[in-house]
Amino acid sequence: MDETTKQTFEALLAESAEAVEAMLRELLDARPLDGEVARPAGLLAAMRHGVLGGGKRLRPFLLMESARLFDAASQAALRVAAALECLHCYSLIHDDLPAMDDDDLRRGRPTVHRAFDEATAILAGDSLLTLAFDIIADRRTALPPDTRLELISRLARAAGMGGMAGGQALDIAAERTPPDEKGIIALQAMKTGALIRYACEAGAVIGGADTADRERLCAFGDAIGLAFQLADDLLDMTASPEALGKATGKDAAAGKATLAGLHGEAWARRQLAGLVQQAEELLEPFGEKAAVLRLAARFVAEREW
Amino acid sequence: MDETTKQTFEALLAESAEAVEAMLRELLDARPLDGEVARPAGLLAAMRHGVLGGGKRLRPFLLMESARLFDAASQAALRVAAALECLHCYSLIHDDLPAMDDDDLRRGRPTVHRAFDEATAILAGDSLLTLAFDIIADRRTALPPDTRLELISRLARAAGMGGMAGGQALDIAAERTPPDEKGIIALQAMKTGALIRYACEAGAVIGGADTADRERLCAFGDAIGLAFQLADDLLDMTASPEALGKATGKDAAAGKATLAGLHGEAWARRQLAGLVQQAEELLEPFGEKAAVLRLAARFVAEREW
Repeated sequence: MDETTKQTFEALLAESAEAVEAMLRELLDARPLDGEVARPAGLLAAMRHGVLGGGKRLRPFLLMESARLFDAASQAALRVAAALECLHCYSLIHDDLPAMDDDDLRRGRPTVHRAFDEATAILAGDSLLTLAFDIIADRRTALPPDTRLELISRLARAAGMGGMAGGQALDIAAERTPPDEKGIIALQAMKTGALIRYACEAGAVIGGADTADRERLCAFGDAIGLAFQLADDLLDMTASPEALGKATGKDAAAGKATLAGLHGEAWARRQLAGLVQQAEELLEPFGEKAAVLRLAARFVAEREW
Repeated sequence: MDETTKQTFEALLAESAEAVEAMLRELLDARPLDGEVARPAGLLAAMRHGVLGGGKRLRPFLLMESARLFDAASQAALRVAAALECLHCYSLIHDDLPAMDDDDLRRGRPTVHRAFDEATAILAGDSLLTLAFDIIADRRTALPPDTRLELISRLARAAGMGGMAGGQALDIAAERTPPDEKGIIALQAMKTGALIRYACEAGAVIGGADTADRERLCAFGDAIGLAFQLADDLLDMTASPEALGKATGKDAAAGKATLAGLHGEAWARRQLAGLVQQAEELLEPFGEKAAVLRLAARFVAEREW
């Protein structure tokens, strides 16, 4: 990706992130909704700390761009995208906890349990996970009931014991018993892959795509999920904490097996190139409409964050 | 409640708990569902530990009995009841964590973080919360899409920052700054009241009740939620850990203000009697159909667990 293309893409990503940020801010307003008693100020502050003012908002971006392929209503896609981001941020807050990865720094700022306390961080994560489902179920997410249910069901599968949370459990177990290559692939497909795949699939669901297109988007999501993870492995091996805004060298320090660590940097970079090509090919049927998503695949593979 | 009535009621409760247990066992099966990669054995074992083999299953019972008032399909109600129990058990697992109430014992057995480890307990809770929404969204919960969405939305509001999780945050803050009476009432309405109210309201939603009946069930839920909490306060003041299967005297030890502590035991027992009467009156329009729910209100007020 040349410098001009990169800047163009980053401007699009930033624009999308701004819309997501505004929606998240609205969703994390202090006024209780119908059915809520009150929103405790301390808990809400911790949720805001964990969600607002940071992050590329890659998953929401993928979701909204995928929905755009099918000319879906952008406001509904934005709400589902914000729900996905709430869920992603819950996972970051819980993963950072002392009992898990024990991180002090996230996006260059103190993690939620450092800025507040551990109990508040656990509850902020719990509340964000709950809020994610609330947002999609809400009537204001103006999609047909069956579509909203499908989005909720898929999100639960991507996030729960058979997806992200299960992947995190496997990741913790991997520190004691390093998995083989097949184990690493399954772990990563769950821990980071499932939610990225969901982002792309959800766009197709929102847009009412047919089965073939929906499967295409799932495969696209899988390819960039793998690329995302490989880029992550490489960054952990080579980048500085200052550049990343979080600790690095953690995988090696924890004795954690990664595909890049197993096969080396050169192999990982070749794999990345192959995944980008695969992702681009999957988008061919969508022609010019998919131009931005194609760039997203490259951007994920070449990312420096 | 005389001894014979109590035994009759307990037999009904036990029968219902058995049906819930069987459904929970099925939902926590090792086979991954469509959209799940795999269900990690360790995580699943922790979830089962936190959910199976214990508890009166009061919330599911209330939900199913409320649904019965409207002749709702019992299989659908059973699935929603199991979802509610998953959510309730997630809250117990997280509340027991060292950073929260730091309990070693629950239902006479080691808490999940004691039987497994802290990280696994956090993830088991997260996964059960996620599973709760999955179950209701699932097509096998054979209810109209709008009904399932309403059940999901209400559950999210009852469980999230404006309900149970928010109440737990207030409860933790209350250890540092004891709330006044109004504060205690709001805290308890959120922490324990919201989910009990949901159980009763959900029965009405499942049964397609009209607005008046739905509000009646909400008010009934509020009354027994208050009774449940007062009984809890009294048990914490007077019962032994052996009888309860968990630590007692915790409120006083933590300097935690309760209504029973504030006004004394005699006041609390008078309040309880008033709440039972109120709950019974709310059920009058349902006649004989509500006989079991009427007993439930008494049972909750007089409970020794």
